[in-house]
Amino acid sequence: MSAGERPRAAVIVTGSELLTGAISDRNGPWVARELGELGFEVAHLLLVGDRPDDLADALRFAVDAGCVLVVTSGGLGPTADDLTAEVVASFAGAELVLDEGMREHIGGILAGWAARTGFAGPALEEANRKQAMVPRGAVALAPVGTAPGLVVPRPGGPLVVVLPGPPRELQGMWPAVLEAEPVRELLADVPAAASRSLRFFGLPESEIAATLRDLGTERDLSGVEVTTCLRRSELEVDLRPRPDAADVAAELHGELAARHAKHLVSADGTSTDELLATALLERGWTVATGESCTGGMLASRLIDRAGSSAYAAGGVVAYSNEAKTQLLGVPSEMIEEHGAVSPEVARALADGARERFGADIGIGITGVAGPGGGTAAKPVGYVCFCVTTADGVVLARDPRLPGGRSDVRERSTDLGMHLLLRTVAPRPAG
Amino acid sequence: MSAGERPRAAVIVTGSELLTGAISDRNGPWVARELGELGFEVAHLLLVGDRPDDLADALRFAVDAGCVLVVTSGGLGPTADDLTAEVVASFAGAELVLDEGMREHIGGILAGWAARTGFAGPALEEANRKQAMVPRGAVALAPVGTAPGLVVPRPGGPLVVVLPGPPRELQGMWPAVLEAEPVRELLADVPAAASRSLRFFGLPESEIAATLRDLGTERDLSGVEVTTCLRRSELEVDLRPRPDAADVAAELHGELAARHAKHLVSADGTSTDELLATALLERGWTVATGESCTGGMLASRLIDRAGSSAYAAGGVVAYSNEAKTQLLGVPSEMIEEHGAVSPEVARALADGARERFGADIGIGITGVAGPGGGTAAKPVGYVCFCVTTADGVVLARDPRLPGGRSDVRERSTDLGMHLLLRTVAPRPAG
Repeated sequence: MSAGERPRAAVIVTGSELLTGAISDRNGPWVARELGELGFEVAHLLLVGDRPDDLADALRFAVDAGCVLVVTSGGLGPTADDLTAEVVASFAGAELVLDEGMREHIGGILAGWAARTGFAGPALEEANRKQAMVPRGAVALAPVGTAPGLVVPRPGGPLVVVLPGPPRELQGMWPAVLEAEPVRELLADVPAAASRSLRFFGLPESEIAATLRDLGTERDLSGVEVTTCLRRSELEVDLRPRPDAADVAAELHGELAARHAKHLVSADGTSTDELLATALLERGWTVATGESCTGGMLASRLIDRAGSSAYAAGGVVAYSNEAKTQLLGVPSEMIEEHGAVSPEVARALADGARERFGADIGIGITGVAGPGGGTAAKPVGYVCFCVTTADGVVLARDPRLPGGRSDVRERSTDLGMHLLLRTVAPRPAG
Repeated sequence: MSAGERPRAAVIVTGSELLTGAISDRNGPWVARELGELGFEVAHLLLVGDRPDDLADALRFAVDAGCVLVVTSGGLGPTADDLTAEVVASFAGAELVLDEGMREHIGGILAGWAARTGFAGPALEEANRKQAMVPRGAVALAPVGTAPGLVVPRPGGPLVVVLPGPPRELQGMWPAVLEAEPVRELLADVPAAASRSLRFFGLPESEIAATLRDLGTERDLSGVEVTTCLRRSELEVDLRPRPDAADVAAELHGELAARHAKHLVSADGTSTDELLATALLERGWTVATGESCTGGMLASRLIDRAGSSAYAAGGVVAYSNEAKTQLLGVPSEMIEEHGAVSPEVARALADGARERFGADIGIGITGVAGPGGGTAAKPVGYVCFCVTTADGVVLARDPRLPGGRSDVRERSTDLGMHLLLRTVAPRPAG
């Protein structure tokens, strides 16, 4: 690598099921994020089927891309089509040898499994032996499930880290990867990531682009890779500097936070959900939900975290007018006069939920999720929100949200979380 | 390709944000599934950053892998770092030329946007011109957003299909891809996929593997690629035959369905959620939910589909004992005697929800999601389910579900949907 650049790493994920489109790979993004935080530039993420030739080609492709580190996942199981260890050994020019200690270790795990399931015999012994074969010169990592991991140095590079496919096993093995001697040696030469994150709510990506263009006229920003990612209506902005541009990233970070302060959720990447949970716990407040179009999504989101029973009181999902009236005390005359989707009903849902569950805060959401049910005055995407507290605080919004049915429901849930945060932890004035 | 094999295709997804781990790629799996259904074998799925050299390497890698078709996504925007069209033109050995018709088409789209936003000027004209540059000999596809797609033949292959990054635009452009002349010519030589799917609920993958081993002793199954995918507690089994093995796949499909009939959800890949929606609409029944540990996830899942207001009556999320008693009429003595997590309370939640919302079916779920709150008798993962109908049907389960907090909640929601389906559409006897 030339001065000022980051060493490159690649991720290779094996599994034919990933190429049928039936499932999305979870390991690639997870490993890529870890590698980025260690200071690598991730050159690519490559998904291949369980075919030895394709895996061998993928390893050579990482060499051509100038990678000093390759992390693979999958293909370490006990069956004949699990061939990663063999292919990597051949790539590294090392023969596979039986690791006696590992054979015993795996044997112990399998014996426990055999005792529980009643399954044993020669097939199990063969599996045990196969999984304990280690390329000569490699470091074997103790299994988290039954498959060991491998750290395999190749003369001239790259270093290959071989991990199992189940995400729980892969993630559980990561600390051992970082402690393996060849990995530690490699990391000693990797400059710290020095990356920074910010989160904004309701800010379009184009605004960040405009700010970058503007700042770019005054100073050279080319040393900082800026990536933006819109998730749950929050724009996450990541700044990844080259080793010689950490100060530019710090300056840029400050400018972005200052220029878009109105939309800033956090200057350290903390999400709305995390901030809300912390703020509720600090205040000792509880929340109750009265949902129509989101149909339980907000209630469910509130209890995502362990320990959420301390602040999530409960909720009612009320689609029909009868349910709104009977379960949350929304006056039927109000529904007749203003319609079920109206700021008035949103407030009554919030108050009703708060009172029924004896909570400190209530939130009401009622809207037109579509695809049917829209009118000229209240089109698809029109959603009314209201947050009320026992102290009389009222925060209301009635935007028209873009997108189809699931977009409207998801964006409504996002905005609901945001409004709860603004109520529990109001911005300082100015 | 040799006889009996399928032509290979590759998917290349560009976007530096995909390599930071911040988001998962949605285009790759979507395109891979479409390609599989067209009869291709997907050789690999490669994610690279917005760097022209890496994209060029990725295209050459697809050549080395023997691909006749490459689909790319992303990098078609108006800014300087959107370079896909340029890199693909160079790969195909074709110069970029201005497509006047496309320039006018995009100009019209941008003019409408400028009128709405008030933004116009030379930057917009430059963007317009850049997006209308098309490799000579390529077919341009009309924009779904503002970026056109491209179908670019390369002498000697592969054919390169260039699509925009936003999933809505990419998917919206797919029908036009299939109609483009060079794609139609290529597809004429691709043997039909003849793939088959089955879905099972609560069947471990190892049972399918055991059946395959058993059947493999009697006949040659090597012509059929079998992939399994566990999603929402359902095991989806896909059978993808080589062109000469369609009859083997048909036979295998029948054997798998027959041997695992007890766990079969559908023999055509239809999901529990789809079957439940159809069955509820056919019967004209409505459902109400009384949820504790799932906290609204089941209610939310029930209204995923458009038109769900016809069968989703509503629900109550009741974590606290007071909420269970006050909102759903669970007797407090029952909670004291049996505990909040008990089959008795699950049934009272089901009955309470059904009665409060005037629904035909009620479902109650109460369990220990963890990480805290478990006891020896009721450990983390112990969840009680009950479905009741106005006619007196009662279907109850109280399994111990494996995994952490989010696993237990998701599996509970899956099992809740399954039990609703079994109530609304019971299996025929035998």
